[in-house]
Amino acid sequence: MATPQKADIDAARLWDDLIALGTITEPGKPYTRRSFTPLFQEGRDFLRGRLEAAGLAVRIDAAGNLIGRLEGSEPGLPAIAMGSHSDTVPAGGRFDGIAGVIAAIEVARAIRESGTLLRHPVEVIDCLAEEPSAFGLSCIGSRGMVAKLDDAMLAMTDADGRVLADALRAVGGDPERIAEAQRDDLAAFLELHIEQGPVLEAERIPIGVVTAIVGIRRIEIRFEGQAAHAGTAPMHLRRDAAYAGALTLARIRERAEALAAAGEGYFVATVGIMEVWPGGSNVVPGRCRIVVDIRSSDPALTDRFAAGLDADSRAAADMAKVERAEFAILSDGVPAVCDPLLRETIRDAADACGQAAIDIASGAGHDAAFMAAVCPAAMIFIPCLRGMSHTPEEYSTPEELAAGTAVLLETVLRLDERLD
Amino acid sequence: MATPQKADIDAARLWDDLIALGTITEPGKPYTRRSFTPLFQEGRDFLRGRLEAAGLAVRIDAAGNLIGRLEGSEPGLPAIAMGSHSDTVPAGGRFDGIAGVIAAIEVARAIRESGTLLRHPVEVIDCLAEEPSAFGLSCIGSRGMVAKLDDAMLAMTDADGRVLADALRAVGGDPERIAEAQRDDLAAFLELHIEQGPVLEAERIPIGVVTAIVGIRRIEIRFEGQAAHAGTAPMHLRRDAAYAGALTLARIRERAEALAAAGEGYFVATVGIMEVWPGGSNVVPGRCRIVVDIRSSDPALTDRFAAGLDADSRAAADMAKVERAEFAILSDGVPAVCDPLLRETIRDAADACGQAAIDIASGAGHDAAFMAAVCPAAMIFIPCLRGMSHTPEEYSTPEELAAGTAVLLETVLRLDERLD
Repeated sequence: MATPQKADIDAARLWDDLIALGTITEPGKPYTRRSFTPLFQEGRDFLRGRLEAAGLAVRIDAAGNLIGRLEGSEPGLPAIAMGSHSDTVPAGGRFDGIAGVIAAIEVARAIRESGTLLRHPVEVIDCLAEEPSAFGLSCIGSRGMVAKLDDAMLAMTDADGRVLADALRAVGGDPERIAEAQRDDLAAFLELHIEQGPVLEAERIPIGVVTAIVGIRRIEIRFEGQAAHAGTAPMHLRRDAAYAGALTLARIRERAEALAAAGEGYFVATVGIMEVWPGGSNVVPGRCRIVVDIRSSDPALTDRFAAGLDADSRAAADMAKVERAEFAILSDGVPAVCDPLLRETIRDAADACGQAAIDIASGAGHDAAFMAAVCPAAMIFIPCLRGMSHTPEEYSTPEELAAGTAVLLETVLRLDERLD
Repeated sequence: MATPQKADIDAARLWDDLIALGTITEPGKPYTRRSFTPLFQEGRDFLRGRLEAAGLAVRIDAAGNLIGRLEGSEPGLPAIAMGSHSDTVPAGGRFDGIAGVIAAIEVARAIRESGTLLRHPVEVIDCLAEEPSAFGLSCIGSRGMVAKLDDAMLAMTDADGRVLADALRAVGGDPERIAEAQRDDLAAFLELHIEQGPVLEAERIPIGVVTAIVGIRRIEIRFEGQAAHAGTAPMHLRRDAAYAGALTLARIRERAEALAAAGEGYFVATVGIMEVWPGGSNVVPGRCRIVVDIRSSDPALTDRFAAGLDADSRAAADMAKVERAEFAILSDGVPAVCDPLLRETIRDAADACGQAAIDIASGAGHDAAFMAAVCPAAMIFIPCLRGMSHTPEEYSTPEELAAGTAVLLETVLRLDERLD
């Protein structure tokens, strides 16, 4: 056997791949590559090409995850997996999720090119639809890998009445065999991600070792009133659903700000979707839908806020003389703690790479939070410009991306020795 | 010359035409036939067919109005015009506007079939885009006929960046020769319309003689904040544009209700459009747009309300730490008074037809309000179910439509004798 070379990443190639994937976007709304769209498929074709060129065996699992695999030297050992997601929010950025997928590809490529054969298999996973999809569900692929993608979810529909199961089939998944997506053969899941917050940049620290990932609960509220002519419906007789929605939205903001300021734990709540129907300037809105995103490090805070939201939205409906036709939990995830051995290994790897590292909590949800249910999971954060994310201005420098990817590679090499 | 028959309407044919036009709709969102869409063109093809079959000369003027004309016996006399509009709001009804166009066709058809040659020419006008179009402008065709469709309006764009002038050209108009659309050859403009309010139904009166039409001011407000990740942007640092929009919407409703209750005049204000951008459930909204529709019988009330709105929307922007990037008057119309001689003639015609009639103000804007700038104009209201309009449930009975149309015919015949 030839003396193996020390694997090393190629920073320029890494950056070029990231930028190349970013060019696959809705032209008028950069950077948009939403799951289940033709553009998403185009992005996946790009990723598949890179994985195949790196010599990995590529497949799509039953939950629609794109997986590249490099076998190890010791048959039967569980795989060390790395990954994140390649889908974006509407008008999002080029880094959220994508950085973790591209970094994983670069690490696998570096290992393969070095001639080093690891003991464990190495996998690169592009998790399907981490961002909220058109079906109102997020982390579809990682849910599938941990047996949390159930029939009710597979029956969810988008605005056009398309069923998630059909959309999953169209991207190569197999909803009838969804149980086969569950993993019991992973030694670890490692996700590199931009911080999406301001801490690392402010502290001038290149590596964040994530301690825990917040739980996210999403609640959909629908108000039903009566559409009417804006000129002839007297004010006091109106059943304006948008009025109920606006009252609720304002109250959400006020209560969330107070709860966050109370200092009992990390807490944020957001209304990112407010739809008013039918949407003509001279029609009193008959329907309104809002989606509330609630995140906390403490499930008790989420419960308390949701109870208040229930009461507030009922009161708003009464005020506007409309029905609160729906108050539904779309998804609910508890906070996830990252694995201690993996965190320690990331710290050691950062040291070995000459990179400073600090512990940090994640305010955003991630595929790693689901993966923690089937294997030890951990995350490496890299800094990003002014904490901006889910916006076209999202940015990390080539140097920041390369430093994080080098630590990811070093972590995988060390885990290959430490893990059984 | 043969002894002319007394013209009479065919109630069954009238109803059938109205129902037939209603079938031309977005299938999933009845009844939707918005101006400048392929469906709108399909509706116009239907109307053109009916006009031609009735023996009228058909043309599209420079402002995109579809006009059918029957010449009179005395050359040089101005025309007696009847009409309304065939476009709908999204998910509107089958009667608003449409009843007036179909009734006008039936009246012209009845006159033509009777063998009676009127002294004056008779015109049927389907006014272009009375409802707010995708360009944010309403009454495009009637504005054109009264020289109020200016270059700034023709340069307005829709959400896809399409320019109104181009859309106008696509429906057969001619923006370069827009001045030619102006009418100085009309003796009267008569518009039959459903009441869109509850009065006639409640009073069991088949005919409303409209005294005046409210003025409508539309104001667009845009808030610009900063899109950010819903999980990592701390509550107290957010610049959430939807929060500013929601605060403003709630305040509009509260102040409008108070002003209407004060009894100083007819007053309503509506937010029918609220758009939140980018619209992902896990993104703090960076932009929000609302359109406010303000109507009153007294321009002073509109001015007072708009001044309060200006202050309220600034305060909401400050509260949400966002910019109020726009506060623009999209359109502004003063109240229009209906012509006394025409109103008297409608009353006489109703008497002659054995139909009770009352005076009534119009809370909705109409093409007739613009037409009043170039000729005597008046309106005939017919009852509608529970005052509902701009909803698929909008309804008048075949008998109510026929009674109104018979009064319209009788009015035209009488005006032909009374007018010079």
